[in-house]
Amino acid sequence: MNLVVVAIGFGLLAVLYGYATSRQVLGSPAGNPKMQDIAAAIQEGAQAYLRRQYATIGVVGVLVAIIVALTLHPLPALGFVIGAALSALAGFIGMTVSVRANVRTAAAAQDGLQQGLTLAFRSGAITGMLVAGLALLGIAGFFAVLVGPLGLAPGSRTVITALTTLALGASLVSIFARLGGGIFTKAADVGADLVGKVEAGIPEDDPRNPAVIADNVGDNVGDCAGMAADLFETYVVTVGATMILTALLCDDPARLLALMALPLLIGGVCIVTSIIGTLFVKLGPSQNIMGAMYKGFAVTALLSVPAIWLAMQAALGDMAAPLGTHGKLAGVSGQALFGCALVGLAITGLIIWITEYYTGTAYRPVRSIARASRTGHGTNVIQGLAVSLEATALPTLVICAGIVVAWQLAGLIGLAYGATAMLALAGMVVALDAYGPVTDNAGGIAEMAGLDEAVRARTDALDSVGNTTKAVTKGYAIGSAGLAALVLFAAYTTDLRAFFPGLTVDFSLENPYVVVGLLLGALLPYLFGAMGMTAVGRAAGDVVIDVRDQFAADPGIMAGTSRPDYARTVDLVTRAAIREMVVPSLLPVAAPVVVYGVIRYVAGQADAFAALGALLLGVIVGGLFVALSMTSGGGAWDNAKKFIEDGHFGGKGSDAHKAAVTGDTVGDPYKDTAGPAVNPMIKITNIVALLLLAALAGA
Amino acid sequence: MNLVVVAIGFGLLAVLYGYATSRQVLGSPAGNPKMQDIAAAIQEGAQAYLRRQYATIGVVGVLVAIIVALTLHPLPALGFVIGAALSALAGFIGMTVSVRANVRTAAAAQDGLQQGLTLAFRSGAITGMLVAGLALLGIAGFFAVLVGPLGLAPGSRTVITALTTLALGASLVSIFARLGGGIFTKAADVGADLVGKVEAGIPEDDPRNPAVIADNVGDNVGDCAGMAADLFETYVVTVGATMILTALLCDDPARLLALMALPLLIGGVCIVTSIIGTLFVKLGPSQNIMGAMYKGFAVTALLSVPAIWLAMQAALGDMAAPLGTHGKLAGVSGQALFGCALVGLAITGLIIWITEYYTGTAYRPVRSIARASRTGHGTNVIQGLAVSLEATALPTLVICAGIVVAWQLAGLIGLAYGATAMLALAGMVVALDAYGPVTDNAGGIAEMAGLDEAVRARTDALDSVGNTTKAVTKGYAIGSAGLAALVLFAAYTTDLRAFFPGLTVDFSLENPYVVVGLLLGALLPYLFGAMGMTAVGRAAGDVVIDVRDQFAADPGIMAGTSRPDYARTVDLVTRAAIREMVVPSLLPVAAPVVVYGVIRYVAGQADAFAALGALLLGVIVGGLFVALSMTSGGGAWDNAKKFIEDGHFGGKGSDAHKAAVTGDTVGDPYKDTAGPAVNPMIKITNIVALLLLAALAGA
Repeated sequence: MNLVVVAIGFGLLAVLYGYATSRQVLGSPAGNPKMQDIAAAIQEGAQAYLRRQYATIGVVGVLVAIIVALTLHPLPALGFVIGAALSALAGFIGMTVSVRANVRTAAAAQDGLQQGLTLAFRSGAITGMLVAGLALLGIAGFFAVLVGPLGLAPGSRTVITALTTLALGASLVSIFARLGGGIFTKAADVGADLVGKVEAGIPEDDPRNPAVIADNVGDNVGDCAGMAADLFETYVVTVGATMILTALLCDDPARLLALMALPLLIGGVCIVTSIIGTLFVKLGPSQNIMGAMYKGFAVTALLSVPAIWLAMQAALGDMAAPLGTHGKLAGVSGQALFGCALVGLAITGLIIWITEYYTGTAYRPVRSIARASRTGHGTNVIQGLAVSLEATALPTLVICAGIVVAWQLAGLIGLAYGATAMLALAGMVVALDAYGPVTDNAGGIAEMAGLDEAVRARTDALDSVGNTTKAVTKGYAIGSAGLAALVLFAAYTTDLRAFFPGLTVDFSLENPYVVVGLLLGALLPYLFGAMGMTAVGRAAGDVVIDVRDQFAADPGIMAGTSRPDYARTVDLVTRAAIREMVVPSLLPVAAPVVVYGVIRYVAGQADAFAALGALLLGVIVGGLFVALSMTSGGGAWDNAKKFIEDGHFGGKGSDAHKAAVTGDTVGDPYKDTAGPAVNPMIKITNIVALLLLAALAGA
Repeated sequence: MNLVVVAIGFGLLAVLYGYATSRQVLGSPAGNPKMQDIAAAIQEGAQAYLRRQYATIGVVGVLVAIIVALTLHPLPALGFVIGAALSALAGFIGMTVSVRANVRTAAAAQDGLQQGLTLAFRSGAITGMLVAGLALLGIAGFFAVLVGPLGLAPGSRTVITALTTLALGASLVSIFARLGGGIFTKAADVGADLVGKVEAGIPEDDPRNPAVIADNVGDNVGDCAGMAADLFETYVVTVGATMILTALLCDDPARLLALMALPLLIGGVCIVTSIIGTLFVKLGPSQNIMGAMYKGFAVTALLSVPAIWLAMQAALGDMAAPLGTHGKLAGVSGQALFGCALVGLAITGLIIWITEYYTGTAYRPVRSIARASRTGHGTNVIQGLAVSLEATALPTLVICAGIVVAWQLAGLIGLAYGATAMLALAGMVVALDAYGPVTDNAGGIAEMAGLDEAVRARTDALDSVGNTTKAVTKGYAIGSAGLAALVLFAAYTTDLRAFFPGLTVDFSLENPYVVVGLLLGALLPYLFGAMGMTAVGRAAGDVVIDVRDQFAADPGIMAGTSRPDYARTVDLVTRAAIREMVVPSLLPVAAPVVVYGVIRYVAGQADAFAALGALLLGVIVGGLFVALSMTSGGGAWDNAKKFIEDGHFGGKGSDAHKAAVTGDTVGDPYKDTAGPAVNPMIKITNIVALLLLAALAGA
């Protein structure tokens, strides 16, 4: 129990860091009145969107909570509410800081590059530490209450189910936030580009464009709030799944509490290493911004190695001794578990490196897209699609190698610890990512407020790095989601045996219902992606029509004498995004129930469980490729455009540039809407299946 | 044995039909000297390409034949050679007719629409009947020799392995022909469009464009020869796999021969129904070309129902009696098997209907892409990608439903008969498809030879239907490939038990090596698709540079006073296509061997077999979605352009049309290179795994 309290302490530390740093950030100068005016419009729009999004999620959430309370137990319903509320809170605070840090970053960039970087990165670090800290506090605190004051046994069914619903709450908020935010940001972005850059011939971030504020709002609600909810969920699900699996596998009640506390403790110590890492994000003499970021990450990753060892030693005592006397943990030592954690750290590092290769302007893939732009829109898109398909290969090989090594070291629990170690670095990774929307906004504000060329150059430099860090985070999120989902699948099969001891379920590939389940599971991300892409296209069309109307109604807007009605466009995108996010978000909730129901009717319960299990694995197998290809491909398209803008193949305004803008537009919903939302989708499917089992067993 | 002889007779009938019809087609008038001149250039280019392609395949083929002979037995090596040779022959004859029918179709269209349709469709029917007939002759003839003069037992290991290598030969030719032909046709098409339509501003099929002949050659080597090899392979693999599975499952030696002959007989009777169907392809009073095609298909499908019943009765006698006394066939009656065949026919019909919905101009998907073109290149591509993702859903549901129903009726052998019934219609389906390149060429020849507007209108009308029939065939091919691959997977697991009776292989999804195998299998189509797309982009770039050079060297070309060097461009595309096809084609050959080797080293033989099995299923699960999305999406993009050209959303020359041309260009390698080549790729992986088993067991 002491270890859980220590983990809670680390969680509080992260929140404290967030509080202190946000005081610092908000205390910085907020620029001239014009800049503040623009920033105020962005803040207002972002908050209006988030209010409405949370109201919608609230309605769905209350319904789900009631269903959980009725079919399972009031405690799981409470877990669901806590998970959902904290996930929403992490997104809300992160975004609140982000929409205030943007204008301050623009102001700080007036003093120098380092000043701008410090401010933007600190703002990102607030979101990062809050995501990790609140997630840790949520699980550890809830677990402490369940096994402390409420006196439940750590491995009891109520505790396991309550942890599962905590994850469900986080996942549900996450899929709505990811998809709604993703649709908002890309509808505004694509719509603003189409009607501004293409039709009216005015530059990006031109204040005459009525959609320009919506575009900036979108960066915050999508890349900041949406992403924060996503990583919060991944964190909660991974750590929670590791605890659940431990409870299901452990055969020694005396050691169970310490073993279940260990993932929490690993998360805790890595908060400390993440905070230390943020201190190392400083420009060297080469003024390399990406280098500064990676320095911070490398420090965190390296320090995490001894930190995880110490955490394990604290929880396990003798690192050479086996974790159990018989059963699945008997052959596993603390050293083996530590090896699995190293595997997780290695996967993280490799995926970041691979994503950098596929989305960085210095390497073959991005340059091949830029080169293909010379022969037009078509060849740009063909090469971009080729890169997006290819970009799945190395991450898949890395994940497969990780699975094999972790399994050889410690079996099922080894996979769980690999995933936990990956997620333990979430604070630092989210910091890198949440930096992106801040600098993106800062550039927009600098442009709209008419700041100096030199300042714009600095905000542009800060922004271009944000593209890569955003791609890196998405690769990391989906990679870790793949491992986490495997742990959830293991929990499903283990649970199944516990709930239905007499039932023999044939999970063999020779069972046709397993094949059907795999096919239907792999279909889900395709269907979900189609819905997300269509939604962006439809909402962007609405933006185009609205902006055209505004231009037609008041010619003063284009002349620069009247102010466009920014709020009207923001409101329009808000309504469109909320409307479009509901049906696809419910797809992964409904699919497991429907597939189970249909196969049960046709072939009976055992094959229904087999098909459901295969569905879970199918959604991982299918989703991993859809998500990896979309996020990497989109990032590569974006940076191919930037590479041309840097003066290659004709530079800005050339035909190659026009083709590259098309590729960038195509990549937008790929990388920021459909691709990243696959990640929570995979996990929701798995969690719903776990809860379905519990509901069917009446537990 | 009599039944096998009857099947051979049906095969000969198909060849006879092909011979007689080709006399008719070649006897038609071949147009004026200018048309004949153009057609001669296309013929020459196509034959030069095919010669070089077959030479390259020959080198690889001889190597593989030697490996097969050394590791297995000379008889399987002979099977391999027969499969490869007949597949090449089907492609060669089909293309030879096609490049002669094109100019004759253009000439016939001078007399009327019905005349043009009759000629083009007859030419397609020649290819269709030769594919089905040669495939049937190959398997049935080889089988007859093995069990007749050579005196081998029908279910003996040598016979099974020889049938497997026959399929390997067909598959190897098929993947090279599909990929090489696909790269050729799309590199020429995209390159010609880029440098002609976009850069020089001359229309499609303008004789001043040096790439125009290469483009027309491409239609023949890709859509005709490549597709013929593909369907030949699918036919051989499906019928062969059904025979192999029968041999593995049957426990009654007295009935084995009749049971193994049944799939051959089903193929035979459906050749007759296909020939009858072709007689019904006639324009009604509404002059609806697509309607005429579907009428022919419907007649074939409906007549096949009683024909298959009669074939089954001939082979099985009492249709209500079980097929075996004990084992897996004991509970299966002839009636159940007939039900499974009906499932196969139903899947075929539904997939054709779904593909028509997703690629026809009358329905929502194509129109949504056309509508999205109004706001530019980017939104066109976004909507096209959304449609391509969505288009996977209904076929997957149909296939899953088919699997469940066939399994409920007759278990494993039911799946095999569902697939066999699908493929039995291959003659008719290929006829619909091979019609496409003929009319495409006819349109090009009419344009280049400067025929009347009225003639051009007729060839255009014939051509636009070809787009849909081509998409339909690809949906059919990949759908049947999915079922056939499941049968191959079943053969793999059954074989495994026969070869290694003492080894317990855990195919459960809980085995991490199964998960790794699934992931690696699903990766293959992605990697393969990436290679195919990149190859087209690269080769198209070569075409652009070559054409630019020709324009620069001789200004008379653009002035219309000099004739461009068509042969030089054809030769360049030929070399590029051959060069680019080799590495991706070897990927599915090498992958099973490498995965088996690595996992065997890490985790031992049982898990290596488990991972290999999962790889086979992973490549089906991943490949089905990649292929369906690419072929449907590409067809939809193509027809969205045609829909705009028909006068919607601004019509030809509008901005929407330009955007739609981009989408069409992107869809080209999707639908004609990467997507369809996934089909033989899936099966090659499975067949190599089967042969690896035999080689490891020393059988």
